[in-house]
Amino acid sequence: MTKSDIQGVAGFSFAACSAGIKKSGKPDLALIVSETPARCAGVFTTNKVVAAPVLLSAPRIRKGQCQAILVNSGNANACTGAQGMQDALRCGALAGEALGIAEDLVAVSSTGVIGAPLPVARFEAAMAPLAGKLAENCIDVVAQAIMTTDSFAKVSGAAGEAGGKPYTILGVAKGAGMIHPNMATMLGFVMTDAELEPAFIDAALRGAVDRSFNSITVDRDTSTNDMVLLLANGKAGNPAIAVGSPEAQQFCERLDAVLLDLAKMIVRDGEGATKLVRIHVCGAKDDAEAKQAACSVATSNLVKTAFFGEDANWGRIIAAVGYSGSEVDPDRIEIRFGDVSVVRHGVTTGAELEAKATEVLKTPEFTVTVDLNLGGGKADYYTSDLTYDYVKINADYRT
Amino acid sequence: MTKSDIQGVAGFSFAACSAGIKKSGKPDLALIVSETPARCAGVFTTNKVVAAPVLLSAPRIRKGQCQAILVNSGNANACTGAQGMQDALRCGALAGEALGIAEDLVAVSSTGVIGAPLPVARFEAAMAPLAGKLAENCIDVVAQAIMTTDSFAKVSGAAGEAGGKPYTILGVAKGAGMIHPNMATMLGFVMTDAELEPAFIDAALRGAVDRSFNSITVDRDTSTNDMVLLLANGKAGNPAIAVGSPEAQQFCERLDAVLLDLAKMIVRDGEGATKLVRIHVCGAKDDAEAKQAACSVATSNLVKTAFFGEDANWGRIIAAVGYSGSEVDPDRIEIRFGDVSVVRHGVTTGAELEAKATEVLKTPEFTVTVDLNLGGGKADYYTSDLTYDYVKINADYRT
Repeated sequence: MTKSDIQGVAGFSFAACSAGIKKSGKPDLALIVSETPARCAGVFTTNKVVAAPVLLSAPRIRKGQCQAILVNSGNANACTGAQGMQDALRCGALAGEALGIAEDLVAVSSTGVIGAPLPVARFEAAMAPLAGKLAENCIDVVAQAIMTTDSFAKVSGAAGEAGGKPYTILGVAKGAGMIHPNMATMLGFVMTDAELEPAFIDAALRGAVDRSFNSITVDRDTSTNDMVLLLANGKAGNPAIAVGSPEAQQFCERLDAVLLDLAKMIVRDGEGATKLVRIHVCGAKDDAEAKQAACSVATSNLVKTAFFGEDANWGRIIAAVGYSGSEVDPDRIEIRFGDVSVVRHGVTTGAELEAKATEVLKTPEFTVTVDLNLGGGKADYYTSDLTYDYVKINADYRT
Repeated sequence: MTKSDIQGVAGFSFAACSAGIKKSGKPDLALIVSETPARCAGVFTTNKVVAAPVLLSAPRIRKGQCQAILVNSGNANACTGAQGMQDALRCGALAGEALGIAEDLVAVSSTGVIGAPLPVARFEAAMAPLAGKLAENCIDVVAQAIMTTDSFAKVSGAAGEAGGKPYTILGVAKGAGMIHPNMATMLGFVMTDAELEPAFIDAALRGAVDRSFNSITVDRDTSTNDMVLLLANGKAGNPAIAVGSPEAQQFCERLDAVLLDLAKMIVRDGEGATKLVRIHVCGAKDDAEAKQAACSVATSNLVKTAFFGEDANWGRIIAAVGYSGSEVDPDRIEIRFGDVSVVRHGVTTGAELEAKATEVLKTPEFTVTVDLNLGGGKADYYTSDLTYDYVKINADYRT
C-alpha cells in the first residue's frame, strides 16, 4: 500500500541546510511549509522531563492550526532550563519572520545531544537562505537533515481517494536509538493534502501512532523530545473526511501503513541492529495483555542477544512472557519461529525442529509467534537484535 | 560487618561433585545438609513460568522445616512439563534416601539451560558418593558447583551474638545474568546456627531480600528458577530470636549485610560487566518512588552503555528518571557522579565539572546520586555497565 518514491504533497514545500549545529557539517536544519495554514494533530513524549521545543509546540498544535515545522538535529534543546524555552521561542519567531507568517503557526522540533544550549546564532544566520530554498517534491532533503545516528533517510507515502478527489499522505521520520514507546527519540512528520474534519485528524493520528511508533523498541528508552505531527492542508479539494465514514476507514488504513512503514524502518535502522523481528502474540486474554507480553519479549536483552547469536533460545522468550505480568498458563504456550513450531504445551518440540528454527533466525527479518491459547487478544511488536555495534555506538556517542 | 573467610556454620555440612550435568565436566551438583531439621524460609521467583524445582520446593519450605538442599547447575529443569516435576521429585527422593531423611525435608534447586530434560541417571549415579563426601567448613565447594556463567564463587558470612551465645550467618549465591528483581537466575542459600522464632525468620528473609537481591539488575530478566532459602538449625543454643527484639534487629543487620554483599558480588560479576554502579535516588516523594526511579536509571541500556564508555552522560540519566513514572520536577533535579555535581536545578553545572565527573566514571565502582528534591524518599539500586562482552556471552551461551 505504501510507496517509497513519493517526494511531495500538493501545497507543501521543503528545504534543508547545514547550519553548523552538527559538528560534522552535515545537514541539520529543515523547514516543512504549507501554502496555507493546515489543520494539525500531534502526539508528544510521555517523559516527564520534556524538552523546550515540545513544551512550546504541543500547545500550539493543540490549537489545531499549523503552517510550518522548523526542525533541527545535533542539539535536543532539552534540560536547558528557561534559556532553552527562550531559544525555542526565538527560533520559531525567526522562521515565522522569514516565511511571513504568524509565529504561533510554527511548530519547532529538535533532536540530538541533551543539555547543551541551542546555538541560536546559527539559526539566525541560516534562516533567510533556508526559507529561500523552499521547493516542492523534495521531502528527501528534510529526511536527511533530521538524521542523528540514523544510517538512512526514512520516507514513506501512500495515495488515496475521497469524494472522487485523489490525495497523498507523505511521512518522514528519524530515529535509531532511545527507541521505545512512548515514543523515544523519534520524530515523525506527516503531510497530507486531504481535507480532514477536526475530530477525525486527532483520532486518526493517535490510532496510527499506537499501532506503529508505539509498538516498536530498540532500547526501551523514551526520550525527552519525541513528537509526531500530522498536517492536512485540504488542497485535494475533497469533502472533509469525518469520523466513521468509509473515507475515514480508507484514510486510516493508509496512514497506518505509512507510519508502520516508517516505524519498521526505525527498528531496521536500530543502533547496531542486524535484524528486524516481529513479535506476534496471540491467544491472550485481550489485546492489551497481548501487547504487554509482546513488549516484554521485544525488550528483553537476553532475547535480543539470542537473536543476534541466531540462537532459537525459546527459554528466554518463555521466561520473558512469564514475567510480563500478562496472564499465562505455561502448559498452553506455543512458540513458532517463522512457521517452525519449537514449543507446544509449554515444552520443546525437539532438537530437529529447533535446528530448523535456527535457519529462520539466520534471515534478516522474521516473525516470532507466541500463542498463549487463552483467548482472542493479539498484538505485534517490532524489535531489533542487541549487538556489539549497539554497545559501540552508545558507549561512544558523545566522544 | 561481613567476612569472606567464614567457611562453615555449626551443624551444617557441605559436598559437591561433577555429576556430568555440565558438558564442561566442572562441578555441577551440591548438597547442603543440617544435622537436624532446620527452621526455614524462602523467597521464590515471581515469574509465572515456574521451573519444576521451585514448584516442588516452595510448598515444602512453606511448611517451615528443611534439612537438606540439593542443587544442580547446568540444567534448569524449567519448561519440562510433567516429566520435569517427576524428575525433581525423583532427585529429591534420591537425596533423602542417601541422607537417611524424609524426602519432604529436602529442597531441590536447579539453574542452567531451560527446556532440556534433567539427566536423572546422572543424579542416581552421583548421589551416594556425594553424600559420602559431606564435610563441615567447606562452603566453597557448594559455591563452585552452583556457578553457571559466574566467573567467581560467591560466599559471605557474618558473626553475631544473642543471649550471650555467639552465632554465625553464612551465605552462598550464584548469578551473573538474567539478573533483575524479582530475582533473576539467582540462587542464594543462607545458613545460620541461631535459633529464630517462626514469625521472625520469614520477615527477616523477606526484608533482607528486598534490600539486596531485589535491588540489583544486570539485564532486567527475571528467571524461572530463582530462590533464596534461609535455614536456621538453632545449634548456637540461644533463646529463639523474636520479632521486634534487640536481638532481631542485630540479626537483621547482619543478614542484610550478608545478602547485600552477595548481591553486589552478583552485579560485579554481571555478564561482561566492568563496573559496579550504585544508583542512589533521594529526595523522592517516598521510598517506593525512589526505588522506581533508581530502577529506571539502573536498567536503561543507554545509561549502562554510557557507563561502559566512561561518559558522564547525565542526559540519559535524567531522561530515564523522567520516564520512570515517579513524580519529578525537572527544575529541581540534581545529579552527582561520586561527589561531583553535574546537574543542578535540572541543568548542567558546566564542562569543567563534567570533565571531573568523567574521572569518577573511570573507577570500577562508584555512586550516581539523583536528588529529586521533592521529599524524604530514598533507595539504592546496584547495576553494571553494558559491554561488548555482555553481548558476546549471551549471543553464544548455548553454542
